[in-house]
Amino acid sequence: MTISGKLTENAVILDKQAIEELFNTSFYGRPRDDRLEVSLIESAYLIYIGKIKVEFQGKELDFNQFFLKASLLVKNFELLYITYKDLRERGYFIQPAVTGFRVYPRGGHPGKTPAEFFVFVTSERIPLPLSDLRTHLDTVENLKKRLVLAIVDEESDITYYEVKKTIPSGTYELKLDRLKSTASLLEDRVMVWDPDTSSVLHNEGFFGKPMDEGHLQLSLVESCYLLEKGILDIEQRNHTKLDFDDFSRIASDIESDFMIKLAVYRTLRNNGLVPKTGFKFGTHFRVYKSFEEISKLPHSDYLVHAIDNNHVFSLQQLSRAVRLANSVRKEMIYGVADSNVDFIIIGRMRL
Amino acid sequence: MTISGKLTENAVILDKQAIEELFNTSFYGRPRDDRLEVSLIESAYLIYIGKIKVEFQGKELDFNQFFLKASLLVKNFELLYITYKDLRERGYFIQPAVTGFRVYPRGGHPGKTPAEFFVFVTSERIPLPLSDLRTHLDTVENLKKRLVLAIVDEESDITYYEVKKTIPSGTYELKLDRLKSTASLLEDRVMVWDPDTSSVLHNEGFFGKPMDEGHLQLSLVESCYLLEKGILDIEQRNHTKLDFDDFSRIASDIESDFMIKLAVYRTLRNNGLVPKTGFKFGTHFRVYKSFEEISKLPHSDYLVHAIDNNHVFSLQQLSRAVRLANSVRKEMIYGVADSNVDFIIIGRMRL
Repeated sequence: MTISGKLTENAVILDKQAIEELFNTSFYGRPRDDRLEVSLIESAYLIYIGKIKVEFQGKELDFNQFFLKASLLVKNFELLYITYKDLRERGYFIQPAVTGFRVYPRGGHPGKTPAEFFVFVTSERIPLPLSDLRTHLDTVENLKKRLVLAIVDEESDITYYEVKKTIPSGTYELKLDRLKSTASLLEDRVMVWDPDTSSVLHNEGFFGKPMDEGHLQLSLVESCYLLEKGILDIEQRNHTKLDFDDFSRIASDIESDFMIKLAVYRTLRNNGLVPKTGFKFGTHFRVYKSFEEISKLPHSDYLVHAIDNNHVFSLQQLSRAVRLANSVRKEMIYGVADSNVDFIIIGRMRL
Repeated sequence: MTISGKLTENAVILDKQAIEELFNTSFYGRPRDDRLEVSLIESAYLIYIGKIKVEFQGKELDFNQFFLKASLLVKNFELLYITYKDLRERGYFIQPAVTGFRVYPRGGHPGKTPAEFFVFVTSERIPLPLSDLRTHLDTVENLKKRLVLAIVDEESDITYYEVKKTIPSGTYELKLDRLKSTASLLEDRVMVWDPDTSSVLHNEGFFGKPMDEGHLQLSLVESCYLLEKGILDIEQRNHTKLDFDDFSRIASDIESDFMIKLAVYRTLRNNGLVPKTGFKFGTHFRVYKSFEEISKLPHSDYLVHAIDNNHVFSLQQLSRAVRLANSVRKEMIYGVADSNVDFIIIGRMRL
């Protein structure tokens, strides 16, 4: 039976009978006094599946007319609608909220269980500031829910990502004493000339890349980390010795994001992980959870990209990063360098 | 036997004997009158393998001293040196040029065959303007060589990419007449309300994504292409009809790169290809070489990203794009929208 309702400013109001037929069995809308208030998104779907008819100013609106009207009233209505429809058709019960949905776990529903997910819906072409993502993360954490990002592409396909805070850690312990040789800062990398030092750094700490037998090239972050730890001395080509401040100033001129990379690198190392360049994967680092010896190198576990607090995600780039990481069986993590470094892990999700 | 030479401003000069021992057999350096002139890169390598000794102002320079000196004289010396060494050790004969190397094919060498590759060496952290890449492409085209991009990452690993001009083409022929229904431009996509029109567009042209039975959502580029071709009429939510100029103006406000995307989309369609969104791959389009019917959809063949003439490649992003494309067995193509659209294909290369 089709139930009739009226479009008000931003919801459809249905009679008492709807509470029984639409809410009690299928959890559409919210009972208000002795009526059922149904959001525009739910209403469009209920019109589509023939459950309700909606009148506005004495005339019935068909799906097309209702959709056009709702699209003018609700920001991102199309995105929200197709995501709602997709989730509903996957068998989830959903309560619409302002920027997304509270989604109940399979088998759960309002009144029985708390919602499990908060699904934030956006379009591939809307840049996503990290600060917004963090606000969502804090909100869902307080509500003890899981954050899902539903990104709708230009052809209306939806990709779901789960976003979580994480603290990556590993089992590697750095046990290097002060080494007695001095390395040279060349144009944009550092060369260790002494064969013993090269060997110790590479074989015990997985630092650098051997240029040949006896010479080791270190990246700027590796060098600066070793310098800061007091393990290695570094000088310029004219033999001027460099301290941490000198070195990081020069390195920042070469790589504008050097300081955030270093902060993330240092935190990863301090957490027992071994970061190496992730260039081939298009990220700052690939990261190993354990390292015993160079000849038994496992596959790396994470791809980590260092960002700062002002970062704005391009969802196209985020999508590419996560897809690439997953295609090589790694997890994609963003390291946010602020006064502390914290980490956000983002993965495709099959709902 | 170790041959002695002298460092001049930007080369090492060796006696006549070197022509026989280093050039005639192994093609190091270039004979000048009755001496052999060897570049600093080649010289560093020859010192390393113990073939030559080099004097400067009456004193012999060891590898370390020579390397530091050369690194001050030649821009990107370290990058060039490690790439030279890598190629040489893979068995190639090489002639250094200013920004890279002419590399002879396997089994070939100077005097016997022309060089096959021009290898342009750069660092992952140096942005690469499209205009520079085009200059290289034009140069190698005139010389009938193949362009190789050697990108050295921060830990001195080298990744080789081959870059080529290409004209992608496919076998799909669009045979749609003017359709009689009018679609609506919603917030950032277009909705076709008429079930027959939806079906024809999707099943015969692989346009859009069905929102449900009867309604089709089109992307902005798809809609604009159909509007331009006179196949579909589009109106705003208030029923104002839109012409090509109106539509493309609105679409450009939504997507700042809309016009270059449209130019590339149009060229791909005109070339018999079927482009769909490449969002999941982090590019503008995934592209099918053939399309017969929607139920027999093959895998797509290319990932295509639209750029304009002023594009500057981030090599990290380029690396990620190529790697992702190859991991899903597609080729990565950049479509450059200028007065014409032309295409550049970039792929990993195993030398």
